[in-house]
Amino acid sequence: MTRLVAPRGQHADRGAVMPLAEFHDWWEERARVGRFAVERIPFSALHSWHFDTITGNLAHTSGRFFTVEGLQVRDGGIDTWSQPIINQPEIGILGIVVKEFGGVLHCLMQAKMEPGNANTLQLSPTVQATRSNYTQVHRGNRTRYLEHFVGAGRGQVVVDVLQSEQGAWFWHKRNRNIVVQVTGDVEPHEDYCWLTLAQIRELMRIDNLVNMDARTVLSCMPFDLPGSTDAEAGTGAGDEFRDALVRSHQVRSGGVSSAGAILSWFTEAKTRCDWTARLIPLGDVADWKRTDEQIADREDRHFRIIAVSVQAATREVPGWNQPLLHPRGEGHAVFAVRPIDGVLHVLVQARAEFGNMDLVEMAPTVHLLPGAAAAGDVEPFGSAVLASAGARSRFDTLLSEEGGRFYHALTRYQIVEVGADVPTEVPPNYCWMTVRQIMDLMRHGHYLNIEARSLLACLHSLC
Amino acid sequence: MTRLVAPRGQHADRGAVMPLAEFHDWWEERARVGRFAVERIPFSALHSWHFDTITGNLAHTSGRFFTVEGLQVRDGGIDTWSQPIINQPEIGILGIVVKEFGGVLHCLMQAKMEPGNANTLQLSPTVQATRSNYTQVHRGNRTRYLEHFVGAGRGQVVVDVLQSEQGAWFWHKRNRNIVVQVTGDVEPHEDYCWLTLAQIRELMRIDNLVNMDARTVLSCMPFDLPGSTDAEAGTGAGDEFRDALVRSHQVRSGGVSSAGAILSWFTEAKTRCDWTARLIPLGDVADWKRTDEQIADREDRHFRIIAVSVQAATREVPGWNQPLLHPRGEGHAVFAVRPIDGVLHVLVQARAEFGNMDLVEMAPTVHLLPGAAAAGDVEPFGSAVLASAGARSRFDTLLSEEGGRFYHALTRYQIVEVGADVPTEVPPNYCWMTVRQIMDLMRHGHYLNIEARSLLACLHSLC
Repeated sequence: MTRLVAPRGQHADRGAVMPLAEFHDWWEERARVGRFAVERIPFSALHSWHFDTITGNLAHTSGRFFTVEGLQVRDGGIDTWSQPIINQPEIGILGIVVKEFGGVLHCLMQAKMEPGNANTLQLSPTVQATRSNYTQVHRGNRTRYLEHFVGAGRGQVVVDVLQSEQGAWFWHKRNRNIVVQVTGDVEPHEDYCWLTLAQIRELMRIDNLVNMDARTVLSCMPFDLPGSTDAEAGTGAGDEFRDALVRSHQVRSGGVSSAGAILSWFTEAKTRCDWTARLIPLGDVADWKRTDEQIADREDRHFRIIAVSVQAATREVPGWNQPLLHPRGEGHAVFAVRPIDGVLHVLVQARAEFGNMDLVEMAPTVHLLPGAAAAGDVEPFGSAVLASAGARSRFDTLLSEEGGRFYHALTRYQIVEVGADVPTEVPPNYCWMTVRQIMDLMRHGHYLNIEARSLLACLHSLC
Repeated sequence: MTRLVAPRGQHADRGAVMPLAEFHDWWEERARVGRFAVERIPFSALHSWHFDTITGNLAHTSGRFFTVEGLQVRDGGIDTWSQPIINQPEIGILGIVVKEFGGVLHCLMQAKMEPGNANTLQLSPTVQATRSNYTQVHRGNRTRYLEHFVGAGRGQVVVDVLQSEQGAWFWHKRNRNIVVQVTGDVEPHEDYCWLTLAQIRELMRIDNLVNMDARTVLSCMPFDLPGSTDAEAGTGAGDEFRDALVRSHQVRSGGVSSAGAILSWFTEAKTRCDWTARLIPLGDVADWKRTDEQIADREDRHFRIIAVSVQAATREVPGWNQPLLHPRGEGHAVFAVRPIDGVLHVLVQARAEFGNMDLVEMAPTVHLLPGAAAAGDVEPFGSAVLASAGARSRFDTLLSEEGGRFYHALTRYQIVEVGADVPTEVPPNYCWMTVRQIMDLMRHGHYLNIEARSLLACLHSLC
């Protein structure tokens, strides 16, 4: 929301093999040469996809990729909400290859097209592939750079963790977030380039550029990786916010809550949740209606399932068609942050979403799904955070959710610094944490949800 | 298997408020006065439980407690195995109150009767209650000592983590394993007594005494809790095994694998698993047959679902009836351990079980379910561990699985010290870990499965 053009300052280019000015030229070239056409089609025009005659589920004829099924929610044993949901049980790889050039860590990033991207091309991890992709169920080209992540010749593993994806739209989805460090030569193919973390953090402030898959992998990357911090770069004295943020990455103990108290708080939140959810046949979902154009709820309030046909020059196969989930309007995800005793704290919410494997994960302070009511009405901290007297927006950018499954799914990601009018004592579903405490949890899956991890990557960019 | 009568040595009684000799007298008295009768009944004699006319699921009329449903497994998208499974989505509490007496930590343990226990009475946590129990769905007595675990007046939380239960028999089951330390007066009711950890560890070697719920909570208890170690007690010089075990609890770094390598190994094992599992109606389970007496597989190889009627004097309600899962024969779970560079290492298996929330958890080196073939035939390390030339059995006791859901479910838990013929290089599904590394993972749920946690509690008892 802030800047539509990247700052081309010297700062972020320090030690980089490619200055940002050059990156932008390369990016424009990639967008120009990429031939990629996405067209909405009726379900009846889908080939290799069909609605099962008994269940009504929408599935690929190979039995692979994903299915659109139904989700039934129960509250205390009583059926309540039902909806369509994407079921993709196989675990894909979201991987970034990193390498030091002149003592500065660089990430091998990809200019990748996805059918659901509002702007077609976004900055993506080195590898972003479902298992069906990289085991070549579609009989296309092999996945480039995969050999650095799997098998005997893989690089030194920096982080390797299964993390969840959108609990509102996916059933139990998780992907392998993996970073490997290499020392040998890696030649960037024309769709790839080496960028420093500082450069990627600058690019994070551009609307719809750094994609969701890149953000989640970046959020998992340990901050104390050699060559990854900008501590030596400095920002000049007197930036209290940044100093509090750097301290929040570094402090090993202290903070408003202890590590044990945070784990107990999370256990308590899960125990309190009385919902259960299960898969049901798509045909049994109540109050949603299927036409040949879309599957939508009768009130047109939530998302739609649609179908598209794709023509591509730069993907594993030249063309395909597939279903996509199309949200209505934009989402809004906010982390409220506050320096407490000189250490920046993040206000994290324990939030149940029906498609999460264990329902409750740690979420943004405020999270409004596309089509939801205004924040003040539905979220305990909506008004407090967004209309706080001393609130100061530190990050505010429109970023995309995964373009391989979602069509034009945009979320406004915002980091808001609040004052003492958002107190340290918070309701049971909330907890103040340091960035260090969050990073310790990020070594394990199913703590921070995908929107919170996106915000964490945004927060890193403020260092 | 080793000793049917507890050793009544002085050692374990050090600092204890009740010597073990006195414990055994108290235990015999509890067994004598407890009036508890369990009788098998046909399904048609169950009241408050019924088979749903559409799904065939067996459920309580309140919609609470648990249901017996069907499980369908797919391998690479193709339907394979199906079976009945217990679905109990609500999270119960398994809690132990601890308190220091004369500088020595004591646990408030309960003599508790469960209908499925082979010997009726077993040593249980302070609180062992499903949410339906403690929210009094059955309109019985309130759960004793619950106030120390929930609400404003609860004790100091030592550990508080959701842990899984039997993945072969439960669908996504987890319970809250919680230990709270109190300082105020806690009067033991006649069914409760204070025991030191050293005493409980002695009692662990008696067949079918310390129940599964106690074992899992004890396995989660951090070893460095003040007053919890026996370091000062000593065992005399020259016990190399015990020294290697104590070192394995203490070492913060080193070991055959780093902490990061263990996490990556586990992520890799989950990624490799191509199974998926989902609930289906019990009536749709193939190759299992329901009579009025039982639900069993046609070949009588696996477990049965049966029904029992219970009369009790010491439970929340005086009588009830319920379904139980009745395995055939005994299970066998083994941890292979080996001192490597003077530090005891445990050989952990990444093992998929259909009912686990994310399928793969860390399991014993060898685990044979009741009714399974001999170890050498089905488990990669079966023969190597159990028939290793230098193998030495360090622990070997028959212990019960949860008597509230399982009928006479006995597992032989064994810790076997192996030599260099079980190498440090192991197949991809195995990993050598120190006890400290395992304990660091135990702060989080869904790493160690229930059988591995039982073995961990057994391993603690060898300190």
